[in-house]
Amino acid sequence: MYRTHTCGELRIDNAGQRVELAGWIQRIRKMGGMSFVDLRDRYGITQLVIDDSKDPALNDIVGRLGREYVVKATGTVAERSSKNSRIPTGDIEIRIESLTILNASETPPFTIEDDTDGGEELRAKYRYIDLRRNPLKKALELRHKMAQETRNYLDSIGFIEIETPVLIKSTPEGARDFVVPSRMNPGEFYALPQSPQQLKQLLMVAGYDRYFQIVRCFRDEDLRADRQPEFTQIDCEMSFVEREDILTTFEGMIKTLFKNILGIGFDQDKKFKYHKAPLSEGVFPRISYQDAMKYYGSDKPDIRFGMEIADIKDLTAGQNFAPFDSAEYVGGICVKGAAEYTRKQTDELTEWVKRPQIGAKGLVYIKVTSEGIKSSVDKFYSAEQLEKIAERMGAGKGDLLLFLAGPWKRTLEALGTLRIEMGNRLGLRKSDEYAPLWIYDFPLLEWDDETGRFYAMHHPFTSPKPEDLDKFFGADRDRIAEVSANAYDFVLNGTEIGGGSIRIHDQKIQERMFEVLGFSKEEAEYRFGFIMNAFSYGAPPHGGIAFGFDRFCALFGGQESIRDFIAFPKNNSGRDMMMDAPSKIDEGQMKELFLRSTI
Amino acid sequence: MYRTHTCGELRIDNAGQRVELAGWIQRIRKMGGMSFVDLRDRYGITQLVIDDSKDPALNDIVGRLGREYVVKATGTVAERSSKNSRIPTGDIEIRIESLTILNASETPPFTIEDDTDGGEELRAKYRYIDLRRNPLKKALELRHKMAQETRNYLDSIGFIEIETPVLIKSTPEGARDFVVPSRMNPGEFYALPQSPQQLKQLLMVAGYDRYFQIVRCFRDEDLRADRQPEFTQIDCEMSFVEREDILTTFEGMIKTLFKNILGIGFDQDKKFKYHKAPLSEGVFPRISYQDAMKYYGSDKPDIRFGMEIADIKDLTAGQNFAPFDSAEYVGGICVKGAAEYTRKQTDELTEWVKRPQIGAKGLVYIKVTSEGIKSSVDKFYSAEQLEKIAERMGAGKGDLLLFLAGPWKRTLEALGTLRIEMGNRLGLRKSDEYAPLWIYDFPLLEWDDETGRFYAMHHPFTSPKPEDLDKFFGADRDRIAEVSANAYDFVLNGTEIGGGSIRIHDQKIQERMFEVLGFSKEEAEYRFGFIMNAFSYGAPPHGGIAFGFDRFCALFGGQESIRDFIAFPKNNSGRDMMMDAPSKIDEGQMKELFLRSTI
Repeated sequence: MYRTHTCGELRIDNAGQRVELAGWIQRIRKMGGMSFVDLRDRYGITQLVIDDSKDPALNDIVGRLGREYVVKATGTVAERSSKNSRIPTGDIEIRIESLTILNASETPPFTIEDDTDGGEELRAKYRYIDLRRNPLKKALELRHKMAQETRNYLDSIGFIEIETPVLIKSTPEGARDFVVPSRMNPGEFYALPQSPQQLKQLLMVAGYDRYFQIVRCFRDEDLRADRQPEFTQIDCEMSFVEREDILTTFEGMIKTLFKNILGIGFDQDKKFKYHKAPLSEGVFPRISYQDAMKYYGSDKPDIRFGMEIADIKDLTAGQNFAPFDSAEYVGGICVKGAAEYTRKQTDELTEWVKRPQIGAKGLVYIKVTSEGIKSSVDKFYSAEQLEKIAERMGAGKGDLLLFLAGPWKRTLEALGTLRIEMGNRLGLRKSDEYAPLWIYDFPLLEWDDETGRFYAMHHPFTSPKPEDLDKFFGADRDRIAEVSANAYDFVLNGTEIGGGSIRIHDQKIQERMFEVLGFSKEEAEYRFGFIMNAFSYGAPPHGGIAFGFDRFCALFGGQESIRDFIAFPKNNSGRDMMMDAPSKIDEGQMKELFLRSTI
Repeated sequence: MYRTHTCGELRIDNAGQRVELAGWIQRIRKMGGMSFVDLRDRYGITQLVIDDSKDPALNDIVGRLGREYVVKATGTVAERSSKNSRIPTGDIEIRIESLTILNASETPPFTIEDDTDGGEELRAKYRYIDLRRNPLKKALELRHKMAQETRNYLDSIGFIEIETPVLIKSTPEGARDFVVPSRMNPGEFYALPQSPQQLKQLLMVAGYDRYFQIVRCFRDEDLRADRQPEFTQIDCEMSFVEREDILTTFEGMIKTLFKNILGIGFDQDKKFKYHKAPLSEGVFPRISYQDAMKYYGSDKPDIRFGMEIADIKDLTAGQNFAPFDSAEYVGGICVKGAAEYTRKQTDELTEWVKRPQIGAKGLVYIKVTSEGIKSSVDKFYSAEQLEKIAERMGAGKGDLLLFLAGPWKRTLEALGTLRIEMGNRLGLRKSDEYAPLWIYDFPLLEWDDETGRFYAMHHPFTSPKPEDLDKFFGADRDRIAEVSANAYDFVLNGTEIGGGSIRIHDQKIQERMFEVLGFSKEEAEYRFGFIMNAFSYGAPPHGGIAFGFDRFCALFGGQESIRDFIAFPKNNSGRDMMMDAPSKIDEGQMKELFLRSTI
């Protein structure tokens, strides 16, 4: 061992001890005939002190040191005269007797500080240097702890982790698979799993009634910002359970993570802090998909703040204000304390909602000020009418009300986006505050006009709600469209972190599902025959959930981006900038795989 | 929840309780107007009893039940009149009030018993049914426990698990990579990692001084029996350490696994039980590569039994027995108590060692019997000479001595194989006995006559032993061939489970290594430039080890084959028989990947 202690552990109690440390040179200062060297390792920074006049050989070594050199230092722990209260080792320093350079370093391409001067590309290329910075180190340590806590919790309640294969069969439904040509099976390909969905359902058929896996998944999609071609999920499945069992089980897991990692508890009192929409059982708020849309204009609402959406259509009719009168839906949000917004600010907001991403036609506002109510629609509505609207929205003096009108779903989604924007502008979305919730009763199916068929919102193995089975087996397409899925999402601070469902275990329902999705018997057999066959050998009732682990970690770390929570992430073109992958392979290998490139 | 209890937990103390169970029908018997149903789940089997005369509706359901039907049963726990002491629930039964069929089952293609009637192919195809059998369930549960214990131990001593990417850059040295065509980077390919070797070394450069990962690895090799194209390893790396630190650290891990999973402790007393070869420090025996070859004819000796090899060349010379006189090496083993072997048996053994896999020219034996010494070379050696040989080998009355002669290494390896065979025949290799050991000081390089160059035995980042650096930097090829690597293997019961090394962190040594391996500067730069570049920014001294997790689990489970310890294994052609993967993909996907098949 090159050291007796780490650079993070020595304290005043160690004074007088002879120690050996090893690490990287963070900083060197010369002052009053002394050299002060900050030595850094994974655990912290310790100050080394060298008396320049004492030992010429030692002095010579100090002279050769540069940033990021790796050294071994031997000396004695001593109390510092001027202490540094910002670091845990700040009370001591090491009086150095000998220094060995274990390795030199080129000058690093950017500074290794919490706020570095390195640009994103440079840091991606030199990821192994970027990973030395504190924020990244903390992110990876957090990730490790999250995984440990998850595993220990699930193990403690009887779950077993079962590894499923990475080289599997390509499945035609869903996003695009990454494929792997097989040399031993010419002309054939493996696929990398988008998730172990079918395999975990097979494990339920096999009787492993509490399965989990922290598992790598792959999706060959055009990458949006902050999406990775490979990502990790906490994948779980249970047998002999109903929705309630799954929600309470994983509420337990999530609460344990909050408690053990962030020291945050959730209880019945806390759950009403922000949230006013109807609740079901459990400690975390639960909101139906319909209510989430109605109150938050989103199926993944951020409930760290209120600002719920109110429907005011009935209060606006018959005043000849065409945009409201002609709209299917009129609704708004109450922005507390924003009545002071200037004309310039409301104009800017109007432009903001008109952007194609949101697509509103215009923005109507009401300001409730101490001089009374002012609005952009004074010409159409009396002060009394405006006051009624303000009253419904719970507005008080100083509040700004913002309204959009149009088709039901699109307008609610636009209001939802505006609500989040105003939450951001007002600083209501605090990164150290956590508001978990469950969304349930999603629609089972989406109708696609283009292809003229239904698609499964979740996947074709998701069960319809038992009370909707009549509709599901009926012939009326509109009523089939109304069928709710026994599916649920876990949402944290406006981000969907988990999603799952109770699966279909009844063959008649599964066959009807394929029929509704427009597959012939032959097609269904071709696409899903293998799992349907498995299901004919005693499939238990079962359901599950999967959590996006990268994003879960990022949220626990109070960050928006997942990139710092992945040791070696890829960029938006799916490239690893550090390894420079993907890359060309040689012709010989192509030949062995029976492949030719067409470019 | 469909149940109040599992099928494994009810005991006599629960008598009188009303319970709900859910599971699979294992067996139905009718006897004396009663139906007895064995209900099975992951946790055990519970007997259900139905009074056939009581409830016609219930009776009707019982009549419809078949093997592997999934049912929910409600009833009252009662003491059994005839108890079954072989199962933990054998004291009770459930008097059933109601039964619900949750799902029917086709007749399974083989019996779900510890010893099934299903052939290997059938069981592979219906893996989800095979996984219901007890031995496989126990294997997967053991695997889960092994992973949990490993993670918790390494976490407790400051290791952090860091996930490395699965889509990486293809590396030209080593076995064949699986590759993944990139749609977004036309004409380019990712590779699946054969191990995260380079990435974990980069994590050391990044300062994460105690890394581990239980990680999937991939190797596109022609599969030998019991090899899988994807496999799992416990991958570990440490900084600021020397060999001794790594051996003691992971000895700690292995001992914890033995203790917590098998209840087996290892101590100083135990370590001498089997083993007589020279030892270094530590609790597990340590044998140098040279000694392992000399005493066991293997670099992964099984030391559950003795039967060490002895060199008798010096005792055989000058008696005109040409096979011995002309041989570079003559050695043998002493098989205790096997002197009664008949002529037929020794003939059969002679044929056995002559098989091409072993390739010996012949077998010489000496039998030490109560009537004196008999041997197959009585014509050449006097009784006195034979006695001297028997004495050197520690033979007593009743022992059989077996000898081979030939070139040093090949003969020792043949003797090593013969030793294992005799261990098997004599039942000395007990599956519930464990003899761990470390092998160290492997040769650094292997000379290949065909290509006329050295190859790295381990990999090109493995450090030579410091005391051999003179030889390494010298010009003499024979002396370079003698250089030992700072590398070590962990061996359990004759199987190599782990291997690792101290890595090169000094650029001059690394450059010399590339030179010795015959790479030009340009080639070295092209092949390893990326990691060499990383190493110029302050690489600490580091080293690591990786354990084959599948085989580790199999050995802990007392099995030779790894297949039962992998939930969904592939066969010897790399096929998943259950999913029928790999498979063809459609032309559209080929086009998107800019690929054309050449078959």
